[in-house]
Amino acid sequence: MDQIVLSSRVRLARNLQNFAFPGWAKKAERVRSLEVMRAAVEKLPVMAGGFAESMDNLSAIDKQILVERHLISREHAIKGGGSGLVLDRSESLSVMINEEDHLRMQALRAGFQLKEAWQAVDEMDSALESRLPFAFSPDLGYLTACPTNVGTGIRVSAMLHLPGLVLAELINPIVQSVNKLGLAVRGLYGEGTEALGNVFQVSNQMTLGETEAEIVERLSKVVHQMIEHELNARQKMLEEKPRVLFNHIGRAFGILSNAHSISSKEAMNLLSLVRLAHDLRMFPTVPRALFDELLLVTQPAHLQRSNPGRPEGGERELVRRIGAEERDVLKKMGAEERDVLRADLLRARLADVPRPVTTQLTQPGGDANKAAGGE
Amino acid sequence: MDQIVLSSRVRLARNLQNFAFPGWAKKAERVRSLEVMRAAVEKLPVMAGGFAESMDNLSAIDKQILVERHLISREHAIKGGGSGLVLDRSESLSVMINEEDHLRMQALRAGFQLKEAWQAVDEMDSALESRLPFAFSPDLGYLTACPTNVGTGIRVSAMLHLPGLVLAELINPIVQSVNKLGLAVRGLYGEGTEALGNVFQVSNQMTLGETEAEIVERLSKVVHQMIEHELNARQKMLEEKPRVLFNHIGRAFGILSNAHSISSKEAMNLLSLVRLAHDLRMFPTVPRALFDELLLVTQPAHLQRSNPGRPEGGERELVRRIGAEERDVLKKMGAEERDVLRADLLRARLADVPRPVTTQLTQPGGDANKAAGGE
Repeated sequence: MDQIVLSSRVRLARNLQNFAFPGWAKKAERVRSLEVMRAAVEKLPVMAGGFAESMDNLSAIDKQILVERHLISREHAIKGGGSGLVLDRSESLSVMINEEDHLRMQALRAGFQLKEAWQAVDEMDSALESRLPFAFSPDLGYLTACPTNVGTGIRVSAMLHLPGLVLAELINPIVQSVNKLGLAVRGLYGEGTEALGNVFQVSNQMTLGETEAEIVERLSKVVHQMIEHELNARQKMLEEKPRVLFNHIGRAFGILSNAHSISSKEAMNLLSLVRLAHDLRMFPTVPRALFDELLLVTQPAHLQRSNPGRPEGGERELVRRIGAEERDVLKKMGAEERDVLRADLLRARLADVPRPVTTQLTQPGGDANKAAGGE
Repeated sequence: MDQIVLSSRVRLARNLQNFAFPGWAKKAERVRSLEVMRAAVEKLPVMAGGFAESMDNLSAIDKQILVERHLISREHAIKGGGSGLVLDRSESLSVMINEEDHLRMQALRAGFQLKEAWQAVDEMDSALESRLPFAFSPDLGYLTACPTNVGTGIRVSAMLHLPGLVLAELINPIVQSVNKLGLAVRGLYGEGTEALGNVFQVSNQMTLGETEAEIVERLSKVVHQMIEHELNARQKMLEEKPRVLFNHIGRAFGILSNAHSISSKEAMNLLSLVRLAHDLRMFPTVPRALFDELLLVTQPAHLQRSNPGRPEGGERELVRRIGAEERDVLKKMGAEERDVLRADLLRARLADVPRPVTTQLTQPGGDANKAAGGE
C-alpha cells in the first residue's frame, strides 16, 4: 500500500486577529506579523532544533529544494521579506508564514498516514492557538484569505503513484469519478501542475460543513479505492499485456542507465516505470529506497546543489537583481548542463543494478507468452 | 574504411538474342528461356555446389531472406514461374533469370572491394558469353529492357554506413553533390527505399560512354571522398558535441538491450548507432561481427525463419492463394510477434555486452566536458 501512497499531508490555514491578510497588508505590517508568528512557532517544543528563516534570506536553489520536497508551495517560494518558514528537525512539520494566509501549518508523512499527519498538525495547531489570537467566527469557523478555505481551513492530501492506471488508460475515468465526490486530483506540485512520473495528488476541496475527522476519513476511503483500482490495473496488465508492460519498463531502465543527457521530466516519468517494476518484484536485489531517492535527487534544485561547481552566490545575486521567478532563473542558467549532470548521476547509481527480471516471459510457451499473443 | 563501406556490388544486365525481353514475353516463352539460361549458368565451374531454383519453388520467407541479403531485388522476389535464381556456394555471386532483363549477374563482396567485385562478375560474364548468344549491338553495346542500362549494362554500387553525416545533418548536401556527379544515392534496398540504419547505396547511373573500368574507377573515387567526409563528421562530433553523440549511442544501446518489443526499422537505426560506437572504440571487448550479424538476423524474414514455431508451409500457401506481395504478407502475419522475437533475440545477444565506454567524459574537467559546454 505504501508502494502506491508515496506520502500523506494535512495542512491547516490560520490567520491572526488584528493583522490584515498578507495579500492586503503593506510590507511593514507583514514584517511585524512575521516577527510575532515566527517567535510563537519557534517556541513550540515540537520545533526544537528546527529551522526558521525569513524568505529573503533563502537562495533560489534552497527555495526550489523546499518546493521539490513539498515543504513549501511554489507560491511561497517567490516570496521575499515579510514572509518566512519554520521547519521541525525531521522536516515532517512545516509552517509557512505569510503565504496566502498568515499561517499555513503542514504535517507530512511518508506512505499512507493521513490520520497520523492529521494528529500531528492538530497538536501543533492547538499548541499555537494558546499562544496566538486566531481569527475565528462562531458561525463560519476559521477565517481565511480565500473563501474556499473558510471553516476548518483544512486540506488533506495524499500523493499516489498510479502508473498502472495511466498505462491501462484508465486514469481519466477514475479522476472524473473522484472529482464527482468533491475531491480534487492534481499533479505532483499541486494545482495546475502536471502529473509527472504518474504521481497524482488527491485532496479535499470543501472545508466547510464537515469536521476535520470526517474529511480525513472520507479521503482515506477514496484513497483505499484508488489503491484497489491501481492494483487491479497492474494485475490486468500483467496478465493480458505483459509484453507491453515489460517493454515500457525495460526501455525506461535502458534509457535511465545509459543516457548522457536527460530532462527532469523524462527522468521522473521513466523512474516511475522503474519503481513500478520494483513493486512487481522485477528488481529483487535492489532496495526500493534507491528509486525513491533518485526521484528526489534528480530534480533540478537538488541536482544543482549536489554539484559543487555551481556558482550559487552569483545566482542568488542575479535573482535579486532581475527580480525574476527563481524557477525560471534555474531553467535559464543551465538546463542543458543539469540534464548532463542528471544523466551522469543516474548512470553511476544504476551501474550495478541488474536488468529487470521477467523470467516468466523468457520461457517459450509460458503463460505470459500466450497472453502476449492477445496484444 | 571497411567500417564505413559495408559491401561492394557490381551487377551486369544481359539479354539473349531470339527471346523477347521478360516483360514482353508470354509465360511459356519465359519458362523456355529460363530453362536455357539456368542450364548454362548452373554449368559454370564457379557455380559448382551452388543453388538454383525457379522462383515459384521458393517460399515467401526464403525470397524475403534473399532480399535482406541483397542477393535478389525486391522486384524479383515477387516473380513466380518463368523466373529463377542461381547462387554460388559462398553467396557472393548471384544470377537473377528473367527479372527485368534475361540475366542480371551480380558479384557481392564485404567491405570496399569494388574492383574485386567487378573482376568476379566480369569473369562470369565472359564464361557465360561463350555459352549463350547475348543481344549486342556494335553501336550501342549490350541491349537491355530499360534504355538506362543499354551499353555496358553495368551497375556498380557500394553500401556506406554514414551515421556521422546523418547526426551532423550534413548528409543532404553530400547526397546532392554526389548526384551532380551523375551518381545515385539510395536507401538500403535500392531505388525508392529509406536509408534505414543510416545505410546509403551509391551507384552509377549511366552505362553508356564510359568503359566498365572507368565507371568502377570513378565510383571508387567518390566513395573515397564520402568516407573522408564521414570520418570528418565523426571527429567533429566527438570534439564539439561528445555528449550529444554519447547520448544518442547510450540510449540506443539501452533500448536495444532492454526492450521487449522493437520494430525492424527502430532496431536498424539503433544498431547503426551502436556500430558507430564500435568504430569509435566504445565497445573494446566486443567483436564487430556481433553488431553486423544482429543487423542481418533482426530483419523480418531472417528472424522469422530462425523461429521454429512459425507455420512456414501455411504461409507459402497463403501467398499463392491471395497472390499478394510477400513482404506485405509477412507484415500482416505477425509484425507484433516478430517485434517481440526481435527484442528477445537482442536482449539475449546483448546480455553480456558491457555499456559503451566514454571514459574521457566521466572525468570532470576533461576536454570532452569542456567541449560539451558548447552544446
